[in-house]
Amino acid sequence: MSLTVFGSIGRDDITTPSGSVEGVVGGSAVYFSLAASLFTKVRLAANVGNDFPDQAWDVLRQRGTDFAGLQVFDDKKTFHWAGSYSGDMNEAETLVTDLNVLTEKPFVPESYTDSKFLFLANMAPETQLEILGQFPNSTVFADTMNLWIDIARPQLDALLSKIDGLVLNDGEARMLTGEQNLIRAGAALQKMGPKYVIVKKGEHGAFLFTPDERFGLLAYPVDNVVDPTGAGDSFAGGMMGALAAASSLTPKSIHRAMAYGTVCASFTVQDFSVRALEQVTRSEIDARFAELGDFLSFPP
Amino acid sequence: MSLTVFGSIGRDDITTPSGSVEGVVGGSAVYFSLAASLFTKVRLAANVGNDFPDQAWDVLRQRGTDFAGLQVFDDKKTFHWAGSYSGDMNEAETLVTDLNVLTEKPFVPESYTDSKFLFLANMAPETQLEILGQFPNSTVFADTMNLWIDIARPQLDALLSKIDGLVLNDGEARMLTGEQNLIRAGAALQKMGPKYVIVKKGEHGAFLFTPDERFGLLAYPVDNVVDPTGAGDSFAGGMMGALAAASSLTPKSIHRAMAYGTVCASFTVQDFSVRALEQVTRSEIDARFAELGDFLSFPP
Repeated sequence: MSLTVFGSIGRDDITTPSGSVEGVVGGSAVYFSLAASLFTKVRLAANVGNDFPDQAWDVLRQRGTDFAGLQVFDDKKTFHWAGSYSGDMNEAETLVTDLNVLTEKPFVPESYTDSKFLFLANMAPETQLEILGQFPNSTVFADTMNLWIDIARPQLDALLSKIDGLVLNDGEARMLTGEQNLIRAGAALQKMGPKYVIVKKGEHGAFLFTPDERFGLLAYPVDNVVDPTGAGDSFAGGMMGALAAASSLTPKSIHRAMAYGTVCASFTVQDFSVRALEQVTRSEIDARFAELGDFLSFPP
Repeated sequence: MSLTVFGSIGRDDITTPSGSVEGVVGGSAVYFSLAASLFTKVRLAANVGNDFPDQAWDVLRQRGTDFAGLQVFDDKKTFHWAGSYSGDMNEAETLVTDLNVLTEKPFVPESYTDSKFLFLANMAPETQLEILGQFPNSTVFADTMNLWIDIARPQLDALLSKIDGLVLNDGEARMLTGEQNLIRAGAALQKMGPKYVIVKKGEHGAFLFTPDERFGLLAYPVDNVVDPTGAGDSFAGGMMGALAAASSLTPKSIHRAMAYGTVCASFTVQDFSVRALEQVTRSEIDARFAELGDFLSFPP
């Protein structure tokens, strides 16, 4: 089933305990699409500048990605982010953020608007609302970040009242609700609108809150974390890709989709940038999905 | 099957965002025994002073606890700890530690030494080694803390080479191995001796590492954490109690025992001191155990 993603394309400089890379491929839409395209064809919408290598699209092209929403700005540079990780690597220290083409509105191709699933990666909630308005029949999931909780709360509240699913990390869930306890935070987020609330907890896994149930999933255990950049977007991409492929929102299909999400993220973190996500095959994903089932097997 | 625990009895002063209590019942052996006694009879060994209320033992008496190892010091005070929690309450700030009777060696009743299972709660590794020497036929699990990693590493290493199972928290696992990544830390701990390594992650659950498998369990989701004191000892008590009741160390029995451990801990944190653990019934434990199964149900 059709899946559209709106998000960012980036050139990243990343330093972790494993080393440093400069000008590598990044951005929420790229991580998301590479993960989702392991399960379904993706319609990508994002802004890019004049400095992005064309061969960066090779893998997504092979996986049948639709680039109608790729908006190229010949006179501008691509979004640039520089960050550094240390210690338990659960959070990056941001060193540089050059928005560049991200100050421009994204382009919404008419051909995308019949998508069954729409994912709005982190961006200004006002922009997310404008895009959402053009997808009246889609199931919409969105991400956000602390910046918008701080400076665009009314628009974010309006967005929350209109989306079907919210995907955010534990710190954002606490900040948005004022609840330190994540179970209370999940319940509070549901009251703000979204039927499905997914709280990502990094290496600790993720929670799902729906009107019918709560569900907890541990992350796939990784013993060689090289670069956590894009893990959350890979989780969202794997999850939405698997949901779109299943074309259903039953408890079972969402649990399975979340498990695919953590498996995608587990590959992402094992190398810098999108390297592992480009190289991984669907059969490797499925093998790790089965391993995760064993790791979590709890026979009551 | 018989289960002996050596640990502390305490009088605690505790401050959390929910309030403050003074001089309440605490100590690793008390939390452990109250949890374990929901599954099996417990043989308790611990030092206590002249200021501990006798009625504090009522519930453990009702649950058939053996007090032959309770050593009363008429001229000394009970171990006293004062601590405070804030924020996400994952760690206490210790304000006071008066060892009092804990400077005395514990008493080992001859009648305990045929126990099938022995749990050595946190204490000086040298003392743990001395006790262990008197239980030649027992399956021995032990806990430790950062203090001993710092000041008694040779004795701790000797202990690790002799015990069957190690139960410790994530921070201690990282400190003891020098590995930030918990999966690597678990593997490193196994190389130090214990066949079973259980890493407690507080609200994030626990990992199990054995020669045959790795297993991950999320914590039972609690939305009203009042006082986290004793959660780790309750986890260990519920786990060892369930293991002793099952009298087996198969993967399935250990997974189930860990689940019982997190269920016991989930009750502990919902009230100050040992209140919830004293009031809870086995049928309430089993109901929450089943709920946990639903919460974690992941049908691949």
